[in-house]
Amino acid sequence: MIGGGSGAFIGAVHRIAARIDDKYELVCGAFSSDAEKSKASGVVLGLDASRVYASYQELIEKEKQLPESERVQVISIVTPNHVHFAPTKLALENGFHVVLDKPMTFSLAEAKELQKVVESSGKLFCLTHTYTGYPMVKEARQFVASGKLGKVRKVYVEYPQGWLSEFTEATGNKQASWRTDPKQSGIAGAMGDIGTHVFNLLEYVSGLQVTKICADINIVVDGRKLDDDGAVLLKLSGNASGVLTATQIAAGEENNVKIRVYGEKGGLEWQQSDANTLQIKWLDKPAEIWRTGAGYLSSYAQHNTRTPPGHPEGYLEAFANLYRNFAECVEADLEGKQPKPESLDYPGIEEGVRGMAFIENVIASGKSEQKWLDFTV
Amino acid sequence: MIGGGSGAFIGAVHRIAARIDDKYELVCGAFSSDAEKSKASGVVLGLDASRVYASYQELIEKEKQLPESERVQVISIVTPNHVHFAPTKLALENGFHVVLDKPMTFSLAEAKELQKVVESSGKLFCLTHTYTGYPMVKEARQFVASGKLGKVRKVYVEYPQGWLSEFTEATGNKQASWRTDPKQSGIAGAMGDIGTHVFNLLEYVSGLQVTKICADINIVVDGRKLDDDGAVLLKLSGNASGVLTATQIAAGEENNVKIRVYGEKGGLEWQQSDANTLQIKWLDKPAEIWRTGAGYLSSYAQHNTRTPPGHPEGYLEAFANLYRNFAECVEADLEGKQPKPESLDYPGIEEGVRGMAFIENVIASGKSEQKWLDFTV
Amino acid sequence: MIGGGSGAFIGAVHRIAARIDDKYELVCGAFSSDAEKSKASGVVLGLDASRVYASYQELIEKEKQLPESERVQVISIVTPNHVHFAPTKLALENGFHVVLDKPMTFSLAEAKELQKVVESSGKLFCLTHTYTGYPMVKEARQFVASGKLGKVRKVYVEYPQGWLSEFTEATGNKQASWRTDPKQSGIAGAMGDIGTHVFNLLEYVSGLQVTKICADINIVVDGRKLDDDGAVLLKLSGNASGVLTATQIAAGEENNVKIRVYGEKGGLEWQQSDANTLQIKWLDKPAEIWRTGAGYLSSYAQHNTRTPPGHPEGYLEAFANLYRNFAECVEADLEGKQPKPESLDYPGIEEGVRGMAFIENVIASGKSEQKWLDFTV
Amino acid sequence: MIGGGSGAFIGAVHRIAARIDDKYELVCGAFSSDAEKSKASGVVLGLDASRVYASYQELIEKEKQLPESERVQVISIVTPNHVHFAPTKLALENGFHVVLDKPMTFSLAEAKELQKVVESSGKLFCLTHTYTGYPMVKEARQFVASGKLGKVRKVYVEYPQGWLSEFTEATGNKQASWRTDPKQSGIAGAMGDIGTHVFNLLEYVSGLQVTKICADINIVVDGRKLDDDGAVLLKLSGNASGVLTATQIAAGEENNVKIRVYGEKGGLEWQQSDANTLQIKWLDKPAEIWRTGAGYLSSYAQHNTRTPPGHPEGYLEAFANLYRNFAECVEADLEGKQPKPESLDYPGIEEGVRGMAFIENVIASGKSEQKWLDFTV
Repeated sequence: MIGGGSGAFIGAVHRIAARIDDKYELVCGAFSSDAEKSKASGVVLGLDASRVYASYQELIEKEKQLPESERVQVISIVTPNHVHFAPTKLALENGFHVVLDKPMTFSLAEAKELQKVVESSGKLFCLTHTYTGYPMVKEARQFVASGKLGKVRKVYVEYPQGWLSEFTEATGNKQASWRTDPKQSGIAGAMGDIGTHVFNLLEYVSGLQVTKICADINIVVDGRKLDDDGAVLLKLSGNASGVLTATQIAAGEENNVKIRVYGEKGGLEWQQSDANTLQIKWLDKPAEIWRTGAGYLSSYAQHNTRTPPGHPEGYLEAFANLYRNFAECVEADLEGKQPKPESLDYPGIEEGVRGMAFIENVIASGKSEQKWLDFTV
Repeated sequence: MIGGGSGAFIGAVHRIAARIDDKYELVCGAFSSDAEKSKASGVVLGLDASRVYASYQELIEKEKQLPESERVQVISIVTPNHVHFAPTKLALENGFHVVLDKPMTFSLAEAKELQKVVESSGKLFCLTHTYTGYPMVKEARQFVASGKLGKVRKVYVEYPQGWLSEFTEATGNKQASWRTDPKQSGIAGAMGDIGTHVFNLLEYVSGLQVTKICADINIVVDGRKLDDDGAVLLKLSGNASGVLTATQIAAGEENNVKIRVYGEKGGLEWQQSDANTLQIKWLDKPAEIWRTGAGYLSSYAQHNTRTPPGHPEGYLEAFANLYRNFAECVEADLEGKQPKPESLDYPGIEEGVRGMAFIENVIASGKSEQKWLDFTV
Repeated sequence: MIGGGSGAFIGAVHRIAARIDDKYELVCGAFSSDAEKSKASGVVLGLDASRVYASYQELIEKEKQLPESERVQVISIVTPNHVHFAPTKLALENGFHVVLDKPMTFSLAEAKELQKVVESSGKLFCLTHTYTGYPMVKEARQFVASGKLGKVRKVYVEYPQGWLSEFTEATGNKQASWRTDPKQSGIAGAMGDIGTHVFNLLEYVSGLQVTKICADINIVVDGRKLDDDGAVLLKLSGNASGVLTATQIAAGEENNVKIRVYGEKGGLEWQQSDANTLQIKWLDKPAEIWRTGAGYLSSYAQHNTRTPPGHPEGYLEAFANLYRNFAECVEADLEGKQPKPESLDYPGIEEGVRGMAFIENVIASGKSEQKWLDFTV
Repeated sequence: MIGGGSGAFIGAVHRIAARIDDKYELVCGAFSSDAEKSKASGVVLGLDASRVYASYQELIEKEKQLPESERVQVISIVTPNHVHFAPTKLALENGFHVVLDKPMTFSLAEAKELQKVVESSGKLFCLTHTYTGYPMVKEARQFVASGKLGKVRKVYVEYPQGWLSEFTEATGNKQASWRTDPKQSGIAGAMGDIGTHVFNLLEYVSGLQVTKICADINIVVDGRKLDDDGAVLLKLSGNASGVLTATQIAAGEENNVKIRVYGEKGGLEWQQSDANTLQIKWLDKPAEIWRTGAGYLSSYAQHNTRTPPGHPEGYLEAFANLYRNFAECVEADLEGKQPKPESLDYPGIEEGVRGMAFIENVIASGKSEQKWLDFTV
């Protein structure tokens, strides 16, 4: 693991997610750009001191020198955005598979370059857009793809948070500080941190692509350097349209990611606050409540569930699904086999490039006087 | 009553709403522009045949000739949009108070002219934006006005319907036919029929005014003549912003009007599907569930409730609240008294003018290449 | 109307319910056993002073003397329980149809005598068990009767209230005072006031009858004279079983009446807090959300609805359904016709007798050391 | 681990729960009473073959011979009920800490004997009543204990399942087969499998003890050998009362464990289907929504949470909380320290004895003609 030392939120989440299905063992780390802190974190995590490194460069170099049977196979990179590209590139080029936190890079240019690296390296790459790991999100995608709703016409996605309602970055809150700092986050705040999640969710579930955007991007809290609120009108492929909202100043909101898709014959709705339920709505018959763990679900939902219906699975299990599916692909790769389609269903480099394109397009649109901008990659 | 003959939906709703609190008696009507149909409807409604008229002109003329003690006092006008202005003007100018269905007129120009008529006539005027009649919507407005949420920053309103997902106007559906006919509805479809409702709800609850708009207006169903779907970015007074969505092609949706308002310290949420609940959310303490009928509510919510907590009141009672409050103002007018503030809390000519301005602005924005248009009245 | 003077809760509810569908006109009343108060209430209600009476006896006597075309047709009796039997009997015997508030009488003996009176009088009789007036409760009954759930095995009903959590009857609260006074209420408090409602709901929806009971009946609040809490195990016809709970000391609860029925193949659930929804659950497919106003509902649900799906109807409309259906039967009676089955679907004398039997059986069981008592009528 | 070989449901759950917080490593197992199956399961789980044993006796004997630094420290026992007592006793007596699945033993007599063994062994013992591991259940217990609701008066618990609505044990379903077999499960079916869970939940959250019971225990499905449905009236210490229902024939239900507690001033409600929410209700102010992860929660809830509010934690995390807290106590034991109060908050031998007493008392009551039986241990 690169990054994720003591005090980091998402690093701990990655480690739990990796452990849940017993497909990974944490064997080495460069947990901080501060060598002392990295060592200290390694001790807490019970690692062999010899495999706690002072930098990601050292990690990659030293691990590569280890015999193949001992060497780390998959490197998780959970640093702030500005330290995504370089370690990922180095890891891939040195033969390691990579799991990387989102958004993928600091800029779209980096993203496109990384895409080339992934392709030339032949290594596997996973980007942790957690929400697509939920079984009922996978069911939603399958349901839309089945055509039962007819042609998709309208998609709404939203990600309301309230935790940045105050000038939190001035209080020493580490999570707030780097996310609102253009040097660490890039050109976008809320749009990069959570907008990319719902952008990805929209394209994943609907099977459509954003083609044009018109964005209202705001900095609501005085003194903040990056956007903390935005709403975006979307034109989608297939003549559909959509609305994406993402905000960090909806005081009192937690993380209630939500998607609604409407086709000619019906619609569907999923939200994180009731993550094990997928509502299917129909023009002329009762709405249906589809539930995690049920026997009538697709193989994709079933593959990503561990417990019977009614025993809720949550965010950590959704995260674990990404790790587990990625592991199954790594295993297949080692064995020279083709993974199952269900295993291949995790976000990768393509989603990462489009996510970075979203950031650049949405910020450009926010600044533009022109109504519609083509979504360009 | 003018309009609202057999087969009309909203006419029957108006009559129930007027009856609930025993403040009105239906005494006369011109229920259809077809004299035979009007008579027939009058018979069904048990009216004295002498007071069922062949046209609104006749109604106003003949009723005016009756002694004051017999004459109708309040005329409800529930015709399609293109027959709003003329009968309302005639009624007001002849000394009758008017309750009018929304949207107020066929055009903004008519609306502004009507405003002058209302002012010069000295008669009372109510526009039936039903959703502001719900007790918890009134509570929401009072709560925002109290300042407890701090300055308002963001408002989301939505009105998703699915009943026009198909080309219903081709099937002889009367409700669909006039609503999608530019000659009867005006320049807008969904934006006029339901967009005005949530526009009004937004301004009513937030206490803010829309200042700029950027709209994506669509005709989704092939062959339809007016918009059936739209999403609008909004700039609001007080440096706030908002998003308004209204659609009639969200297959499987009923009428789940919803509003969310976020201020510096918290937010609130109300939706018609759980109409007796107002959620109040806070940055740093538990969310609260405020309920119709509870003793802790403001005088505005209490005034608009008939039953104890837990016995749900619904759409008809919300509608009845408009009629009841209007009646209290008519009574006060008769007695030469000042009505209670709670009685005065019903939508009127000002809301009607702004609603028509919304329609013209939003359709203009939908056609414009320019991103933000000033909201002009 | 007999009873229901100023300050009474349920009298006003009856009047609204009767008005909603324009089938009734209030023409006379004996609103209080105090002649002055009765007159005063009559003035407030706008009645002709000559038809506001000093007693129910006077009302019945004088109205009977009026020409048939002027005379009241249906008498609503909304007094406390101890003044149910005598006016109802007198009214029926003098040729008036009666709508009576629940529970039907002061004792089972009275109930059985009243049954004879109803039968011999040939007049129509309605008992206002409001909850069976909800369209989705009617749908629930039809659904069970259709056999789609298979044989019913288990039924749960509950009625939790919190308003008697304190010794409210000592504070001058009129509603609390008579309900907790054995002289006015009879032998039961909560079991009579709300237990009878859910008993009726259980038998109505399930189509089964209670055959044995085992009750835990409690007086929780110090000083109270009648039960304010109870839980009852039930054996039902058809080898099913059930649980009924009714309490007035569930602090913080409103009036969330709820029923769940389980058969061999699935179950259903309805609760007043979401009154326009009926959940249908299946062993092996997604649960379904059935909604008031939808086109797929039975004629019984459709008959009892006024607005399109998504515009909530509530408690007053449920109450109005009883009045409306009863009026349709009165009209059919006048015309010598057979009412529609949907019109006949209102609670009557049989439900009233069983309700009173419930009260006597449940109180007896509460006092008994024996586990199961046969439910006797 | 003893039990939990391939095909077992709960064994896999235990392993995930143990892994989540990185406090355990699976080092040995006797996964089946069939030596071959045990070996095969060990291979799948990646264990060293030398530590996969043919029986629990062998496991305990061989592990004890290993040097302390290599030897297993905590043994998880996840066998059917009839194989709980013997391995647990043997493990404790040989110096191992034990985590045991519920219900604790085959009979109350065994339970009491095991209590003595735990006490004399000085080893730690955890019984996996999962539902008390949920953070909001812990908050509920703390909230009641704080006295804010006043004296507790009424408690309702329910556990509705539908998965045994058919004669599933005849279809080869392994989970159904042992649970309905008196030789493996003991004298109770549903009451042992899920009734004990809600019995434990009731006593845990309310802080009260059951003192008398009156049970209706049924075998609903033809051919079944043990109860699949029951409802129980309860008298509780402190003059409170309660109702417990547990059923496996509520067709269409999943595992929606629910508890409601009412005191003099308010009530609380928690249910597994919305596990991250605790509703607090008040007599005279708005209900509150308390949420997992929030800063206002008690140290007990905070201690048992891993993610920020709005990222749902579920059943596996609740289960993991038991394992984690137990591990913290084992660590404290090793270090000779006193564990934190939050770490000590896991179910143990006392809860196990009372759970077995519940089973014996409830089955006795089900067969008794006497209404109330004293709850005896």
